[in-house]
Amino acid sequence: MDAKKIVEKLESIGKDIVKQLELNQNPYLEIPERSLDNVYFDKETGLIKLGSKKQKRYYLNLSQAKKFMQTLLVASKIKWLLEEDKPSLSIRQLYYLLKHTIPGSKENTFDTQDETDPIVEDVEVMLDVLRENLRLIATPNGVLAGDLIVEDKTGDILDYTKMGSAGGAIPPIVEDEYFHIKEINVEYVLVIEKYAVWNVLNQQKFWKKNNCLIITGKGQPARAERRLIHRLAYEYNLPVYVFTDMDPWGYYIYSVYKQGSINLAFFSEKAGTPKAKFLGFQTADVKEFDMPQSSFIKMKDIDYKRIKEMKKYAWFQNKEWQKELTNLEKFGHKIEQDALVSKSIEFTAETYLPTKIENKMFLP
Amino acid sequence: MDAKKIVEKLESIGKDIVKQLELNQNPYLEIPERSLDNVYFDKETGLIKLGSKKQKRYYLNLSQAKKFMQTLLVASKIKWLLEEDKPSLSIRQLYYLLKHTIPGSKENTFDTQDETDPIVEDVEVMLDVLRENLRLIATPNGVLAGDLIVEDKTGDILDYTKMGSAGGAIPPIVEDEYFHIKEINVEYVLVIEKYAVWNVLNQQKFWKKNNCLIITGKGQPARAERRLIHRLAYEYNLPVYVFTDMDPWGYYIYSVYKQGSINLAFFSEKAGTPKAKFLGFQTADVKEFDMPQSSFIKMKDIDYKRIKEMKKYAWFQNKEWQKELTNLEKFGHKIEQDALVSKSIEFTAETYLPTKIENKMFLP
Repeated sequence: MDAKKIVEKLESIGKDIVKQLELNQNPYLEIPERSLDNVYFDKETGLIKLGSKKQKRYYLNLSQAKKFMQTLLVASKIKWLLEEDKPSLSIRQLYYLLKHTIPGSKENTFDTQDETDPIVEDVEVMLDVLRENLRLIATPNGVLAGDLIVEDKTGDILDYTKMGSAGGAIPPIVEDEYFHIKEINVEYVLVIEKYAVWNVLNQQKFWKKNNCLIITGKGQPARAERRLIHRLAYEYNLPVYVFTDMDPWGYYIYSVYKQGSINLAFFSEKAGTPKAKFLGFQTADVKEFDMPQSSFIKMKDIDYKRIKEMKKYAWFQNKEWQKELTNLEKFGHKIEQDALVSKSIEFTAETYLPTKIENKMFLP
Repeated sequence: MDAKKIVEKLESIGKDIVKQLELNQNPYLEIPERSLDNVYFDKETGLIKLGSKKQKRYYLNLSQAKKFMQTLLVASKIKWLLEEDKPSLSIRQLYYLLKHTIPGSKENTFDTQDETDPIVEDVEVMLDVLRENLRLIATPNGVLAGDLIVEDKTGDILDYTKMGSAGGAIPPIVEDEYFHIKEINVEYVLVIEKYAVWNVLNQQKFWKKNNCLIITGKGQPARAERRLIHRLAYEYNLPVYVFTDMDPWGYYIYSVYKQGSINLAFFSEKAGTPKAKFLGFQTADVKEFDMPQSSFIKMKDIDYKRIKEMKKYAWFQNKEWQKELTNLEKFGHKIEQDALVSKSIEFTAETYLPTKIENKMFLP
């Protein structure tokens, strides 16, 4: 949805409230619920989603009046940002923009960011758009390289085969209006958990030799990386392979790219990539690639505990992942993706990744 | 120092040890001490530095033999990396490369990264080069924009006026061999603590209108950002202005850019920028720019405690900073740089920064 349509939608919400007031009714906003009991894993799409429950937020209700007013303030400021074509802001900047003392009183519109953040999410789900469509950003962290040409909102043409040792920084908004993909000539997208591993593959021009995009989110990915990978998978029908550490934390990062997360269920629907495959590192690889003992890290209580938790998650309820989590428990050791250099510095690029990809040695 | 010279230096260290062995002497390595009591603030240069104390590490010494051997293993692996022109690695990858079980024994060369990290630093100071010259990297985080053209080690030409909404990612190594500055046409470098603030300035093309470079390290800067700013200040004689939050944490980030830090004293010598100036946000700005009450954040015990600590640091012992820290204590509130949007979204770019820079309203 573009800025103009969002403004129209916000206007119609405002007009609706005015109409209710004119009819002497008690005005309300209807907002999809973001509480945990309205979040579920949708087996059919493979995504963590919001359910259909909605809440009504009334004006004439002692416990809801302040929040009702705050919601309108946030909605109206967003409308203004879009109409005036203002720069994109962080949600902290939006908070400062909204916070003021109501004239003739000592009452603040908002006291802390804890009050604006949930309302921003309310407005997102009410409009069924992403925060980024409202020009509200989170700090991106990732970098990428490969045969991709983008026209940026600034008019700059970005060629990700020519971004040097640093790779191209992922911008805070990757929606088409900001990040228009003009050309893409790759066979797949390789998502790498850690920067150090991405960095070696970039220096070895893995993306060129294997005709792929290499992306890292530097650990737990930010919103922009997840959304960009989603776009690449669905708009360009590209396979996505995720390469992480062999430990519960790496496996969970994979699941965030794939199915999303509970806490950001609404975003997960739009940024998850259910068709992503897990490339490794996995327990079967230990024998397959003859990993030396020196690469094993003994698991601690916290690791075992995390595996137990993950075994219960709805999106790990297939036999392959149940088996993998059990195998990891039994093996009792973690292996980091960095540790592949103990075979050789070239091993990841020349042996491990090509073998895994050619033979489709993936977990679902 | 280039790779060839470093290899020569490493070779001469090795030859020296062989010679000592042939003479039936007890071989040793002489390494500048990195302990806290050999770190001092050098008033003349304005840098946190290593003193002149050195330690001798002997082969025939029960408590030093293992470390002696480990030092030679690290030095020899680095020599190999440079001679073979291998990709740059993280120090974690180097650890995996070095760790192995000594044949015929159950003894590992290294058991944890805690053993390799200090030895990498020993080798750095022994050779008087940066880790980056040894092709060992830390993950960079920063981005920049402005009239700068760089030839990257890959041969790519990077134009930082054409990096779109994302800006250009700072690469892990910014030494001339990797990041050769071909053209730079700016009047100053503006270092911004937070990404969100950098992001708005980038969208407003502040760097173009004001002919400067804008850089953010996203909070506490990584090595590459500090080193790049040092190079810009000294090789191109550019003024550097640092813009942070008005709180002890922001002031400390400034001091890290300027004088460096105790823990990385050796790096500070080579990456500090003593001529950097503190642009703000500072207590005098509150009145000067008529900041609204809604932007004040009440200080907590932890903030007061940090101010007290900082007042004692040797590099905060000038009257301007002692006064500023006292003023902050008295004011009892922090103000974030993000909060300037509460004046207007344009205020930072159109009023605050130009006023401060034109009138040289800086702290030393």
